[in-house]
Amino acid sequence: MPTIALLSSVADMRHLHQAFQEEFPEARLRMGDDLGALCEIDAAVCWRPPPGLLARMPNLALIQSAAAGIDHLTSDPTLPDVPVFRIIDPAMAFGMASYVCWAVVHRQRAMADYLAHAQAHVWKPRRLEPPQQHGVGIAGLGTLGLACAQALMALGYRVRGWSRTPRSAPAGLQAFHGDAQRDQFLSGCDTLVCLLPLTPETMGILSRDLFERLPRGAHLVNVGRGAHLVEADLLSALDDGLLRAATLDTFVEEPLPPAHPFWHDPRITVTPHIATATSPVVIARQTRLNLERLRQGNAQAAAVDLKRGY
Amino acid sequence: MPTIALLSSVADMRHLHQAFQEEFPEARLRMGDDLGALCEIDAAVCWRPPPGLLARMPNLALIQSAAAGIDHLTSDPTLPDVPVFRIIDPAMAFGMASYVCWAVVHRQRAMADYLAHAQAHVWKPRRLEPPQQHGVGIAGLGTLGLACAQALMALGYRVRGWSRTPRSAPAGLQAFHGDAQRDQFLSGCDTLVCLLPLTPETMGILSRDLFERLPRGAHLVNVGRGAHLVEADLLSALDDGLLRAATLDTFVEEPLPPAHPFWHDPRITVTPHIATATSPVVIARQTRLNLERLRQGNAQAAAVDLKRGY
Repeated sequence: MPTIALLSSVADMRHLHQAFQEEFPEARLRMGDDLGALCEIDAAVCWRPPPGLLARMPNLALIQSAAAGIDHLTSDPTLPDVPVFRIIDPAMAFGMASYVCWAVVHRQRAMADYLAHAQAHVWKPRRLEPPQQHGVGIAGLGTLGLACAQALMALGYRVRGWSRTPRSAPAGLQAFHGDAQRDQFLSGCDTLVCLLPLTPETMGILSRDLFERLPRGAHLVNVGRGAHLVEADLLSALDDGLLRAATLDTFVEEPLPPAHPFWHDPRITVTPHIATATSPVVIARQTRLNLERLRQGNAQAAAVDLKRGY
Repeated sequence: MPTIALLSSVADMRHLHQAFQEEFPEARLRMGDDLGALCEIDAAVCWRPPPGLLARMPNLALIQSAAAGIDHLTSDPTLPDVPVFRIIDPAMAFGMASYVCWAVVHRQRAMADYLAHAQAHVWKPRRLEPPQQHGVGIAGLGTLGLACAQALMALGYRVRGWSRTPRSAPAGLQAFHGDAQRDQFLSGCDTLVCLLPLTPETMGILSRDLFERLPRGAHLVNVGRGAHLVEADLLSALDDGLLRAATLDTFVEEPLPPAHPFWHDPRITVTPHIATATSPVVIARQTRLNLERLRQGNAQAAAVDLKRGY
């Protein structure tokens, strides 16, 4: 009977309670201010846990990220040396694909203009810009990136992808990898979608240096992490016309503070970190599965490679 | 050297001129007020041509619709008895798929609310409604309908389709056909997308009788023709909660008159017939191809079956 702590410094983890009761009824759950004796906790399911807390659990055997990313764990220098798992969920990929397709079409087809015209009762059709002439690049070709690429190809966009190491890509997706092919990849991205994991190498990757390698007037979609983006560089790139627009779902500080300049810039579309979400049922099932793997001694292959960062 | 008239009572057909010069340089073009001797015209490329005009061309051998539909031709009782062709264009299907995916996601994920919150600098995430639990039905499984179905499946929606006669459907698409399966089809459409051809049977099909067979609070997307919809029935169905929302790209009267109630209803999203468009190059190429078929005596198979209406 494992004892599992549900930990977050920013979210109410009670929304996971029912799913754990149904999918993992033998687990004892601890959450909120009432964690009980920390030495009793076997596993922790986390979304931005309070820094230092995991290190105070002497018998902790497993850390389960409640998200696809684990940067919210590795940012804690006291992270204990136990296997860390992340959520890999095809259903989560559908949420991401629907957000990314919406974001790409909304800007590429100027849907915001049509919505504004409708409010003014104005009929003003524009010529269709063929999607086949619009290049969309996905940086990061994991489960989420590949789902976005597939969906964008079904809309007729010219889709390319970039990953750190070579990946097998579906038919129709032009795949690039590594530092050597990065500039070539960027040169064809009329829209660039960031779905990279946040690692020391990718922190601040969305910078002026990168924006200068995109076609002039490109659209940036950041659905990775806020810290991928150098915020000041985005604002100056928009001012200079290097970029035409940005759609941002993720920020260094969340909620985005009311006075933040991103809210006030009509070229930037802000959404409140809703592109996708893991389902509580999937989190409960994957936690149970990973504890079982650990018990059987074969957790290594499924766990995150912390050096790599995903 | 065929003489081809480019005819429309609503659009400026000069945008086709360059494509015809490049793709069909041996054709002599006539358009606007300067049609010359009507007896010299061999073929007419039409979008809502002036009623009665085609009947005054005694040597007309071919009518090419500049669109996927031919209802703008068959509504003229004096339409001469010559082969009629319509545009069937995979690139046009991409435009339609991108519009339909945008329309479905925009409502299903309440993106309009996020845009409004952003304008007020309010961070207000909502729980993700999984696309797998949202049924989207496509009425009409031609080239456009199938492209929409494929793209919506790539976003994780539960997609079903309906057609008058049985069609081969791709994996994952639940296909219904004929009157007998219509109600069963409609009962699973949280969003209904109308992509039917406009024929005497489908005129006014989007009526109260149909809305009552949808799940309560469904979303209607009409990208077929304005005359598919009984406008008064839509407004009363929205008032009664039978429907929650409508996204309309096509109207009986276009441009939609400024005083029309659809403009003023926040539950209705109006766009100015922009879901997709045929490319001038494709129109020129298909006109050339169809004249060639006619010359070789094998136009029949490619021509529209006017009794069927598509």
